Amino acid sequence: MSSTTPESTCRSRVEANFALQQVMHTFGARLGHVEEGLVEIEAPYQEHLTQQDGFLHAGIVTALIDSACGYAAYTMMPPGHRVLSVEFKVNLLLPSKGERFLARGKVVKSGRTLTICTGELIAYQGQTAQTVAIMQATMMSLAPTKTP
Amino acid sequence: MSSTTPESTCRSRVEANFALQQVMHTFGARLGHVEEGLVEIEAPYQEHLTQQDGFLHAGIVTALIDSACGYAAYTMMPPGHRVLSVEFKVNLLLPSKGERFLARGKVVKSGRTLTICTGELIAYQGQTAQTVAIMQATMMSLAPTKTP
Amino acid sequence: MSSTTPESTCRSRVEANFALQQVMHTFGARLGHVEEGLVEIEAPYQEHLTQQDGFLHAGIVTALIDSACGYAAYTMMPPGHRVLSVEFKVNLLLPSKGERFLARGKVVKSGRTLTICTGELIAYQGQTAQTVAIMQATMMSLAPTKTP
Amino acid sequence: MSSTTPESTCRSRVEANFALQQVMHTFGARLGHVEEGLVEIEAPYQEHLTQQDGFLHAGIVTALIDSACGYAAYTMMPPGHRVLSVEFKVNLLLPSKGERFLARGKVVKSGRTLTICTGELIAYQGQTAQTVAIMQATMMSLAPTKTP
Repeated sequence: MSSTTPESTCRSRVEANFALQQVMHTFGARLGHVEEGLVEIEAPYQEHLTQQDGFLHAGIVTALIDSACGYAAYTMMPPGHRVLSVEFKVNLLLPSKGERFLARGKVVKSGRTLTICTGELIAYQGQTAQTVAIMQATMMSLAPTKTP
Repeated sequence: MSSTTPESTCRSRVEANFALQQVMHTFGARLGHVEEGLVEIEAPYQEHLTQQDGFLHAGIVTALIDSACGYAAYTMMPPGHRVLSVEFKVNLLLPSKGERFLARGKVVKSGRTLTICTGELIAYQGQTAQTVAIMQATMMSLAPTKTP
Repeated sequence: MSSTTPESTCRSRVEANFALQQVMHTFGARLGHVEEGLVEIEAPYQEHLTQQDGFLHAGIVTALIDSACGYAAYTMMPPGHRVLSVEFKVNLLLPSKGERFLARGKVVKSGRTLTICTGELIAYQGQTAQTVAIMQATMMSLAPTKTP
Repeated sequence: MSSTTPESTCRSRVEANFALQQVMHTFGARLGHVEEGLVEIEAPYQEHLTQQDGFLHAGIVTALIDSACGYAAYTMMPPGHRVLSVEFKVNLLLPSKGERFLARGKVVKSGRTLTICTGELIAYQGQTAQTVAIMQATMMSLAPTKTP
C-alpha cells in the first residue's frame, strides 16, 4: 500500500474487519480516527469489564490497545493480507478509571513480514484526559495462503 | 504469609477477590486450582469474546493469564495488601482455538514490593491441549494505606 | 526533586553515578544531554561489541538504552535514592549499523516507587540517522536503607 | 532440521557462528551445552562489565541470555538460514552478583518464520546458584536471500 492510499480506503478496510471482532461489540467499542499507520478505538466505561476495584481490567485495556495497534499495522499491509498479533508488552501507569476510553495505535516501523507499533489508552473523566497504559507490540502480515 | 499458610486460606482469600472481578463473570470464568504461588482460572469458549477469525481475542487471553498471575502473587502477599499489575508481556504462540481454556499463573520471585510471575494459556480441543500464549509479568503489593 | 531542580544539579548527580559504571568505559560511552526526565548517552562503533554480522550486539544496544532510561528516572528520584532496573522490553527495528550511536531515555511516569520510561537507540551513518531499537522499561527507586 | 539432527551437527553450526560474535570474546564467554532447542553460554565475572554497584550490567545480562536464546532458535532453523532477534523482554530478579554466570536459552515454539524462546541467567557464588534474570524472546529465521 503506497503512502498515497486514500484515507477512505484505509478506513473501509479496517471497518470491514472491525465489524467481525465480536469482542468489540461486547466492549461497546467503535472505530474512531483511521489513517495510514494510525488507528483509534473508543469505548465507554462498562461495569461488566471491571476488576476488583471497579476499574477496567488490565486485559480489557490490552484488548483495546492491541486492536488499535493491529489495525494501524493492517492499514499498511497489502490488500488480502491478514494481521496477527505476535506479542505485546503493556505498562499500566494508572488505574483505568474513566467515563470513556480511547485506544491509539501507531506504526513505528512497517516491514515486509513484521510491523512494530506503539500504543496507549487514554482515560477521560470529566475535563481530564490521562494516559493510563502504554504498549509496545509486534504485528505480523500473513499473505492469503500462508500460515505463521 | 509464611510457607505454611494452609491452602484453604489461600483459596478463600483469592475466591473473595475473584468474586469482585465483574469481568470474570463476563468471561464465564471460574477459579480452578489454588496453592501458594500458583493459581489456575478456567473459562469456556464464548463467541462474544472473539476476534475477526473466531478465536479468543489476544486481550481476553491476556486478561485470563494476567488474573491468574495476579492471584498467584496475591497468595504470597501479607493479609490486607492489594495486588496491582505493573506490566506484562505476552507472546501469542498459536491461535486461541478451543472449547475451553485454562490460564495458569506462577510466582517466580516474590519480593517485599514486587512479585515476578510467568503464566500461560492452555487451549483444550477434543483430546488435545496446547499452550497458545505465554506471559512474563510484574505484580505489585500495596499496603492498605499506600498508593503506588 | 521538584520541577525546578537546576539542570546542573541533575547533570552532576548523573555524572557521578555514570563514572561508576565500568561498562560504560568498555563501551567508550559518554554522557550527552541531561535534563530532568531525559538523558542521552553517546557511544562510538566498536568492533569488540559486535555480533556475527558486524553490527552492535542487541545486548549492547539494550545496555545503552537501559542506562539512558535508568538515569532519566534517576533525575526524578529524591537525593540519596538508588535506581534499579526492574524490567525492560526491546524491539529491534533495524540492524545496529552505524559509526556512532545515541541512546535516549525519557520518563513517561514517575511514581513514588516505580518510574516508567521509554527509550530508543539512534544510529548515525554519514548523513543519516535512524532509530534502530525502542525500549519500554520499569525502574525502581530504592531509599538509602531499603532492599527491593 | 528434523528432530533427529545429531547433536554434533547442532553444536558445530552454533560454534561456527559463536566464534564470529566479537562481543562474546569481550565477555570472556564460551559455549556450554548445545542440543536441539537448548543452548547454554558461560561467562566469568569481569569488572569491566559492571554497573555502578559492581554487578554485571543489565545489558550484559541481556546480551548473554539473548545469544543463548538466539542460538537455541538457530539449532532448529534450516541450514543456510540466519537468525535475528526481533524483540525480548527481561525481568531482573536479583542483582547479578557472582563469580561466574550461565545463560540458558530454550525454544518454546519453533515456527516457519518466528521462534519463541525463554531464557534465564544463573549466577554462581561459592556453593549457591540463583536465577537472577528471565527472558521471553522472539527470534526470526531469515532465508539466505531475504531481508526482514
